Amino acid sequence: MFTLTHNEKNSRARLGKLRTFHGQIDTPCFMTVGTQGTVKALSPAELESAGAQILLSNAYHLFLRPGMEIIKEAGGLHSFMSWQKPILTDSGGYQIFSLALLRKMSDEGVEFQSHIDGFKHFLTPEDVIEIQGVLGSDIMMPLDECVHYPCGRDQAEVAMRRTLDWAERSLRAAGQQGLRAAGQLLFGIVQGATYEDLRKDCALRLAEMDFDGFAVGGVSVGEPKNLSYNIAGFTLGFLPKDKPRYLMGVGLPEDIVAAVDSGADMFDCVVPTRYGRNGTAFTSAGKITVRNAAFARDFSPLDKNCTCYTCRNFTRAYLRHLFNTEEILGLRLLSLHNIHFYLDLMRRIREAIAQDAWKEFREGFTASYTRPALHP
Amino acid sequence: MFTLTHNEKNSRARLGKLRTFHGQIDTPCFMTVGTQGTVKALSPAELESAGAQILLSNAYHLFLRPGMEIIKEAGGLHSFMSWQKPILTDSGGYQIFSLALLRKMSDEGVEFQSHIDGFKHFLTPEDVIEIQGVLGSDIMMPLDECVHYPCGRDQAEVAMRRTLDWAERSLRAAGQQGLRAAGQLLFGIVQGATYEDLRKDCALRLAEMDFDGFAVGGVSVGEPKNLSYNIAGFTLGFLPKDKPRYLMGVGLPEDIVAAVDSGADMFDCVVPTRYGRNGTAFTSAGKITVRNAAFARDFSPLDKNCTCYTCRNFTRAYLRHLFNTEEILGLRLLSLHNIHFYLDLMRRIREAIAQDAWKEFREGFTASYTRPALHP
Repeated sequence: MFTLTHNEKNSRARLGKLRTFHGQIDTPCFMTVGTQGTVKALSPAELESAGAQILLSNAYHLFLRPGMEIIKEAGGLHSFMSWQKPILTDSGGYQIFSLALLRKMSDEGVEFQSHIDGFKHFLTPEDVIEIQGVLGSDIMMPLDECVHYPCGRDQAEVAMRRTLDWAERSLRAAGQQGLRAAGQLLFGIVQGATYEDLRKDCALRLAEMDFDGFAVGGVSVGEPKNLSYNIAGFTLGFLPKDKPRYLMGVGLPEDIVAAVDSGADMFDCVVPTRYGRNGTAFTSAGKITVRNAAFARDFSPLDKNCTCYTCRNFTRAYLRHLFNTEEILGLRLLSLHNIHFYLDLMRRIREAIAQDAWKEFREGFTASYTRPALHP
Repeated sequence: MFTLTHNEKNSRARLGKLRTFHGQIDTPCFMTVGTQGTVKALSPAELESAGAQILLSNAYHLFLRPGMEIIKEAGGLHSFMSWQKPILTDSGGYQIFSLALLRKMSDEGVEFQSHIDGFKHFLTPEDVIEIQGVLGSDIMMPLDECVHYPCGRDQAEVAMRRTLDWAERSLRAAGQQGLRAAGQLLFGIVQGATYEDLRKDCALRLAEMDFDGFAVGGVSVGEPKNLSYNIAGFTLGFLPKDKPRYLMGVGLPEDIVAAVDSGADMFDCVVPTRYGRNGTAFTSAGKITVRNAAFARDFSPLDKNCTCYTCRNFTRAYLRHLFNTEEILGLRLLSLHNIHFYLDLMRRIREAIAQDAWKEFREGFTASYTRPALHP
């Protein structure tokens, strides 16, 4: 399923190809987030032409709306949302703990109230696999217990042990339900909060199980950035070299560059589309806020190095006007540009690794991407 | 500028070609509304691929935001919004009377407060022409006085006389400012509320002036639909046959079909995009509200006769999901479909006229387009 095609000479950065039922993904890759079966403000055609090879969606959200009956009748998520390339579905564990009203948590599963209508649900790890079977995602994620930062060691250990137990049950369920035989991949998720011994223990235990890839969960949950980098880098070091490594929910461009350096292969984050809707654009010279008065008469594109539809056709002055007048085209054009920026960043990262020029790339990126304040 | 290419054999419906600086328009035509220099939720590329030959924008809105200095520096509205086909700009007279806080009205011009920031402005008909000169619109509209329904005869007559006076002044200003020599067309606007003698008087007086086309204003301002049809039909009959006739702010598909029958050539309306944002789609069998529970498991397209991106790729069940989850893609896809529906309707209208089959078309349209209630 996964071929490691190149190890960069002077770092832990690596190049790979991940084969899934709906197509092949070049890694390191960024997965655009389409939580509710749609990438916010963008069409499948736009994502395809931006070069997206895989999207991420969310089992919890789709389970609540439109519900599994409708997805089943539609013939699965690919058909429902009209996206024929690979999809990874997050189990929704994180959303159950952050969005839903959590009612009761046990080794058996999780009882919660929908954040939409308050309706009560109970889901076991096996249910969550079954849901992703109906969704027909190319890569499934098991139900896990994700803790917030800060979290005491005892609580972190209980959550990690439960996550391990659920990982085994998920693996068994995916086999029994015939999903892996049908081509759906399943990844394991490392938890353990900010405790290195727990992270190491969890990673090594998971590595013994027959997963198609491994994810580092529970980072970017409120901890300081340095701690986040350290825990991610530390954990990635214990994951099998011959399987894809997915750093969940990461991140900003500089976070992705740092994690590629630690050997991560896959990323997802709401940032490019969320920032796009809020009027912040990523450029090769850092972030800019288009509402800024400095752009009122700026008739240059968002990023002169960018070839996206937005940069080929529209000026900063026009984009500022669209945000000032609250026009939908503004958030569309910025979301589109930001996704282009992210996918182009991943292309440049892969190129640098292929040429054993990672160090030069990283230094060049840091020098040009100066990270001005979000709202200058 | 305008060539009447065919008079339909059994009706007043007509076929024409209107040449403007940025291209030719086949009439009868529908002008998609882009009030603030953008068609709500749609990109110029989408409008072009839907077959839009002309957009409508609004001088009043653009004068307030981003302001004329910025449009001037951008090189005009076409360049600012990245739309290289024809643009008609409404003067904004209607908006000044409906949106702005009207301060003072005189024969000289109109004093008002911006609906955005309360700032006070005074505009003469000459100013409004100058604004449209900076915008560089292909077709300019003079400042007029539009009255609401119902309106007493005395008030309607004062407004009509002032509109006539302003029409003459606008014509003179457009000449003196060199705008018509530079290729910008100018239309006259007939007012007169619901009074036939005022409408006739206004139309005949305008017809003596050197306008490039004529518009019927002040319809669809709250009057009953039959009265609206009658006044529009009556007024259109007094306008020169060799010039384009524009029925302002009209309308629903059935209104357009009725007005083509009375000899109208040009239309504009916010309905396709506004309804699209609210979840209502136009189909060959009438309007549907996609949020309707009846569509929860409807895996057919909005309109099986439609070839737009939405209908080629997405089901009613998916569109309903997008509206239920308040996803931006939903209003994008419905706006796009509705614009396709309108532009396709105009293509079918022109085809029917060309084949002298208007009566058959109109009967077929009425039979299939059954107009179910907006919220069934």
